[in-house]
Amino acid sequence: MSAWPKKHLLSIEDLTADDIHRLLELTDHMVEINHRPIPKVPALRGKNVVSLFFEDSTRTRTSFDTAAKRLSADTMNFTVSASSVNKGESLRDTIETISSMGVDAFVVRHKSSGAPVAITKWTNASIVNAGDGWHQHPTQALLDCYTIRTRLNRRDSFEGLRIAIVGDIKHSRVARSDVQAFAALGAHITLVAPPTLLPPSVADWPVDVSHDLDALLPHLDVLYLLRVQRERMDDALLPSLEEYSALYGLTTARAARLAPHALIMHPGPMNRGVEMVVDPSELPGSAILDQVTNGVAVRMAVLFTLLGASGDLRSENVS
Amino acid sequence: MSAWPKKHLLSIEDLTADDIHRLLELTDHMVEINHRPIPKVPALRGKNVVSLFFEDSTRTRTSFDTAAKRLSADTMNFTVSASSVNKGESLRDTIETISSMGVDAFVVRHKSSGAPVAITKWTNASIVNAGDGWHQHPTQALLDCYTIRTRLNRRDSFEGLRIAIVGDIKHSRVARSDVQAFAALGAHITLVAPPTLLPPSVADWPVDVSHDLDALLPHLDVLYLLRVQRERMDDALLPSLEEYSALYGLTTARAARLAPHALIMHPGPMNRGVEMVVDPSELPGSAILDQVTNGVAVRMAVLFTLLGASGDLRSENVS
Amino acid sequence: MSAWPKKHLLSIEDLTADDIHRLLELTDHMVEINHRPIPKVPALRGKNVVSLFFEDSTRTRTSFDTAAKRLSADTMNFTVSASSVNKGESLRDTIETISSMGVDAFVVRHKSSGAPVAITKWTNASIVNAGDGWHQHPTQALLDCYTIRTRLNRRDSFEGLRIAIVGDIKHSRVARSDVQAFAALGAHITLVAPPTLLPPSVADWPVDVSHDLDALLPHLDVLYLLRVQRERMDDALLPSLEEYSALYGLTTARAARLAPHALIMHPGPMNRGVEMVVDPSELPGSAILDQVTNGVAVRMAVLFTLLGASGDLRSENVS
Repeated sequence: MSAWPKKHLLSIEDLTADDIHRLLELTDHMVEINHRPIPKVPALRGKNVVSLFFEDSTRTRTSFDTAAKRLSADTMNFTVSASSVNKGESLRDTIETISSMGVDAFVVRHKSSGAPVAITKWTNASIVNAGDGWHQHPTQALLDCYTIRTRLNRRDSFEGLRIAIVGDIKHSRVARSDVQAFAALGAHITLVAPPTLLPPSVADWPVDVSHDLDALLPHLDVLYLLRVQRERMDDALLPSLEEYSALYGLTTARAARLAPHALIMHPGPMNRGVEMVVDPSELPGSAILDQVTNGVAVRMAVLFTLLGASGDLRSENVS
Repeated sequence: MSAWPKKHLLSIEDLTADDIHRLLELTDHMVEINHRPIPKVPALRGKNVVSLFFEDSTRTRTSFDTAAKRLSADTMNFTVSASSVNKGESLRDTIETISSMGVDAFVVRHKSSGAPVAITKWTNASIVNAGDGWHQHPTQALLDCYTIRTRLNRRDSFEGLRIAIVGDIKHSRVARSDVQAFAALGAHITLVAPPTLLPPSVADWPVDVSHDLDALLPHLDVLYLLRVQRERMDDALLPSLEEYSALYGLTTARAARLAPHALIMHPGPMNRGVEMVVDPSELPGSAILDQVTNGVAVRMAVLFTLLGASGDLRSENVS
Repeated sequence: MSAWPKKHLLSIEDLTADDIHRLLELTDHMVEINHRPIPKVPALRGKNVVSLFFEDSTRTRTSFDTAAKRLSADTMNFTVSASSVNKGESLRDTIETISSMGVDAFVVRHKSSGAPVAITKWTNASIVNAGDGWHQHPTQALLDCYTIRTRLNRRDSFEGLRIAIVGDIKHSRVARSDVQAFAALGAHITLVAPPTLLPPSVADWPVDVSHDLDALLPHLDVLYLLRVQRERMDDALLPSLEEYSALYGLTTARAARLAPHALIMHPGPMNRGVEMVVDPSELPGSAILDQVTNGVAVRMAVLFTLLGASGDLRSENVS
């Protein structure tokens, strides 16, 4: 039995495999809505969904915004630079103030791990973690699961699937969230990274570690590439982008070594010429734009689960 | 009889006590709407409410935006940095241009006193003053009145209420607006400030002046703290934030001297450790978050009064 | 017969005179909608219109946004500074990503001529060119045509109309678009500019060229003034704003030489004291605010033509 109270979505760790499966099944329904001529339902009419981004991300903010609008919620966007935080107001005061205007959910991105959890103490609204530091990005993990589930037709389990996650594991909330979600669904996960970009705690993770991507490639069902942060070179954790690309970048030659059914995934935005040397639009295994499309549907499922339990998913006949 | 034509809301000076009472009674109705499961009515459907902010204020802009959306108006936001004003276009040309696209109300914040009045000459739209220089912030005064009225159960009059306003009176549009509104409703007002932060005109205001906050505290019904602008120290109007805080800041000791029923109010954002030394969330008399919540309802009442005389406040049954 | 597939609006060159007339007739209907008490129809309900502005323009962005909302579309705004383009993502990746979230139309402004055409290759959404470099601004030309058509009562043709376009022709997408549209409808066009601000290709345009504005004025039906870009002086293409103003600016004396029925037009924002010395609000012939008002209706007609062929223009009875 799940102990997840369906009030917040803070971390994949809070979800059981069953919780994940239920969210993915609800996502199927949202995908069906998104294929209608008028992809809109009144489920969250009158609900106020506020995105509060202390780090810029057009991609994630827009995806949540689109998801909320398709459920007929009202939406508002805050970014740090436009907020009173600039005037020295504390995060707590900002949250309490906006919350007092009547907010049903905050979608929060923050550079500090744990900020979304802290925020739950200062508001009655639901909190969706849209990325906090190196910690978690749970909707990314859910959309990745949904993409694998539909593209590889694995509705019941990921048992037996071999997934490699390649790149800067240490600083990646996507890697942490994906490892937990993929493992919960039963996949076998291998992390591939230079030793400087692996976290000390990796020994306790449910994964294998490899430094030899080329040997792995023919055996993979999913090759998941992480974005290389150029800042890591300034930190002397990477010798050069060229060397990274030579060892871990997806070239035409490496793509040719993948099994025909294998998926290529990336959370975006891609560094073309670094981790992504080949043009993925020329690879039939690329699921990268599917990830983006599925992101809207997964976020609809999450918002509906947190806010709309009693709501209505019938075809729109009012707004 | 009121001469207020209900076209614009520019200054509390334009309103009689009766006008204020009517707006506060309409606010009661808006509060009821805000407590519905779907807090939305079609009253201003098809109306276009444009916020035009030449000074940043997330708080006020969001409050108006939420108010407009709950009445089903369309909303658009302009801030200086994103507008053609940067290209050297005059304020008048900007107003005339946006107005020509079809605007029903402009919500205006500007650093110059009188800008909202000037704008009324260049458009047929209604103008709501959302703060102009040191001059006026009428919806702040109305939400402050509404908060006192409901928290202290003073529906008919503020006769006999003792209110102290503490801080930088000279540069405060909130103080000017509140003094006029509180006095119109019959309250007894005392201003507490260092002499450098009192305006020369204060002798003509309907107030007493004191420099001794501690002596006043036990006799107050409302303690209203203003935000200290750190810039004032650069102007040599304040010796230091520490000294200000020692003389006028709300400490635990000072809070303990207030009567049990007394309210603590602040227009936000608070400078914690300066005018607000105590954590107000630990004081039962704090009405600060009520002010924020009431702000949305008061602004709904104002927008409905200006734009929706013939509109419909029934429960939402369409959008 | 028109070959225009009504999927994108990229350039006036793609339209026949008949295409233009049909769009202007549809605009008549949109003007009627805009005069209703609730100026909103459900025609594009559930459609997602995304404005993607790589150059700032409050005026044009707001006009499209208002147009989309009046047709009940959902709208989202991107500007360069808020987008992942800052993280080094390519334009193509940005388009493919946003498009994958479910976009029906992109309204694109870009400093590079041809960017909107390039974008058509990366998305299935409709593209509306909202200004690309010196190349095209087709909705400006359509709203200019609509303004002339209604103000001068020329519903069937511009045959015999004499129109002068004055200013920086060389760097003006407005001039290029207007010349094509006015010529398609049969007008006689004279360009008036210093030689440094005429393009080399002008010999091939369907226009006369003059350097003597004063001689032309009494014979004009329309005087169309372009915005002077102050940057041109830095490029040494203009001696000084004063000299430009003396030769080409609209002064009271020049306005007095126009025929009583002649229109004065400008795409905005105006440089008062440079190309616009007189206050146009004092000239009955000024059609400048009509242009702005008509811009919303023309853009409604364009969005409806591209996205709403099967939509519904009846009076709003749902949202």
